[in-house]
Amino acid sequence: MTTDRRAGDVADLVERARGGEPRAVARLISLVEDRSPQLREVSAALTPLVGRAHLVGITGSPGVGKSTSTSALVTALRAQGRRVGVLAVDPTSPFSGGALLGDRVRMQDHALDEGVYIRSMASRGHLGGLSATAPQALRVLDAAGCDVVLVETVGVGQSEVEIAGLADTTLVLLAPGMGDGIQAAKAGILEIGDVFVVNKADREGAQATRRELRSVVAMTDRVDGAWKPPILLTTATTGDGVDDVVTAITDHHDHLERSGELTRRRLARVRREIEALALAEVSSRFAHLSGDARLDTLSERVLAGETDPFAAADRLVEHL
Amino acid sequence: MTTDRRAGDVADLVERARGGEPRAVARLISLVEDRSPQLREVSAALTPLVGRAHLVGITGSPGVGKSTSTSALVTALRAQGRRVGVLAVDPTSPFSGGALLGDRVRMQDHALDEGVYIRSMASRGHLGGLSATAPQALRVLDAAGCDVVLVETVGVGQSEVEIAGLADTTLVLLAPGMGDGIQAAKAGILEIGDVFVVNKADREGAQATRRELRSVVAMTDRVDGAWKPPILLTTATTGDGVDDVVTAITDHHDHLERSGELTRRRLARVRREIEALALAEVSSRFAHLSGDARLDTLSERVLAGETDPFAAADRLVEHL
Repeated sequence: MTTDRRAGDVADLVERARGGEPRAVARLISLVEDRSPQLREVSAALTPLVGRAHLVGITGSPGVGKSTSTSALVTALRAQGRRVGVLAVDPTSPFSGGALLGDRVRMQDHALDEGVYIRSMASRGHLGGLSATAPQALRVLDAAGCDVVLVETVGVGQSEVEIAGLADTTLVLLAPGMGDGIQAAKAGILEIGDVFVVNKADREGAQATRRELRSVVAMTDRVDGAWKPPILLTTATTGDGVDDVVTAITDHHDHLERSGELTRRRLARVRREIEALALAEVSSRFAHLSGDARLDTLSERVLAGETDPFAAADRLVEHL
Repeated sequence: MTTDRRAGDVADLVERARGGEPRAVARLISLVEDRSPQLREVSAALTPLVGRAHLVGITGSPGVGKSTSTSALVTALRAQGRRVGVLAVDPTSPFSGGALLGDRVRMQDHALDEGVYIRSMASRGHLGGLSATAPQALRVLDAAGCDVVLVETVGVGQSEVEIAGLADTTLVLLAPGMGDGIQAAKAGILEIGDVFVVNKADREGAQATRRELRSVVAMTDRVDGAWKPPILLTTATTGDGVDDVVTAITDHHDHLERSGELTRRRLARVRREIEALALAEVSSRFAHLSGDARLDTLSERVLAGETDPFAAADRLVEHL
């Protein structure tokens, strides 16, 4: 009986979320994020509804204006009548309440807009944290009828690469004078960008950064050979140049669809997601092993020099 | 016979590495990094020799001067007669050859010093990459008799937190004007720092950054309550202030030993390492499943809306 009632609740919530009810969307994301008992039910209910939204990852070093740019993009997308979801993910810190609150404040412009869903999400633990939870939240926003979902990393990412893995299109933000080309190359973000944006274009050095970026991007080997990542200038605080970013994002989506790359990217994403969920399950089984296969016992033996980490890992896997 | 010969080779290599032969150290790290068939043998041979080195993680945003600071620390530690290992890890990019080369160039001062081992390491794949390979390389440097091993992240880290997990002591580098306190808090690095260094102290704003940092650090809850992280000023290019950093690192090590925290940190580290190795093994088993438990097949079914990621993950785990 209880299960039936819950199933009814979830189906009802999904129906209301599809109808555009913000509280239903929020509740579904909470069920996903809190790993509630209904999580699997929610996931199953969303399955036939997802795959329509264009997922856009927004990444860049601290200080480039990610939050402001996200907000400006929301404004521009809303002006086109598109429904927009925003997922702000902080994968690094479990202590991120304050920082996320800061971002929420910056997003207040959109708080009363019924066509916008905004959600902050802190990472829960390490393994499977971001890679297991964020995709579920994105599925909720997708199923709820968002045309575009912006995924913003808050802070220095658990890795920009991981965020890129969540998105169809990855927007890499830079700012003038944030470090030379070598530093940017180090960050490993040049390879993952589908659209590059030099924000704070009203500052000195914006054109130089764009030129430098152009020469580095031109040298990057890309699997998706046909797409040439544009490098745009914006001033997110005034909105200057943001419409061009929206156009570039839309162009990239069209390109992905035409080339078949959209399906390839999404297959790779689902594959990673399934694997992350399976490994999270295995990891929780490891935590419950007993006797000489207890992780604590094995760790003490390695530290005492009685065994080595590989032999200890073998013991764990054997006892699964 | 082959196994015996190999075992002999490994034992011989380990002996020569302990004797301070740089080529033997380099060869052992390569065996570890390339996941050679002898990897387990190497790991077993190192087991009784490790645990003496003080592992110091060095982290910070791009542009704060990590490489220069690492080099200056090597100079200061060598002046005290200590043997030093340096592991420069790039966890984000598989395309990092150039960036790593850049760092090697900066470390050239120490290339001919027999008391210094320098090694760059790019991450190999995602799961278990950094967390499985870097600890093995650190064990080699430890077993080879390094008194201190500096672990430097190259680029925006896969997460500063992960590097902190590899080290006994974590050094967080900042620079004047790299962003306000909120940005630093976002990066999640304030919670993990044992020693904070404001580098480029000759630039404007260094004292202000230090003051701001001091007030934020003072608010941070720390499990390791007794240690108050010092906030130091350096100019790594001239070496100014670097001796104080060495003193702070040494003080922190003494504190860790006295408080029993060193053992706790190392136990937690070994635990994560064992788990990462075990999960990497499980992951490779997932990749070899066949029939309807093939990851590709499951991914296609999820994308087609026929099943959901959780049900697909269950299928994987069932077939282990």
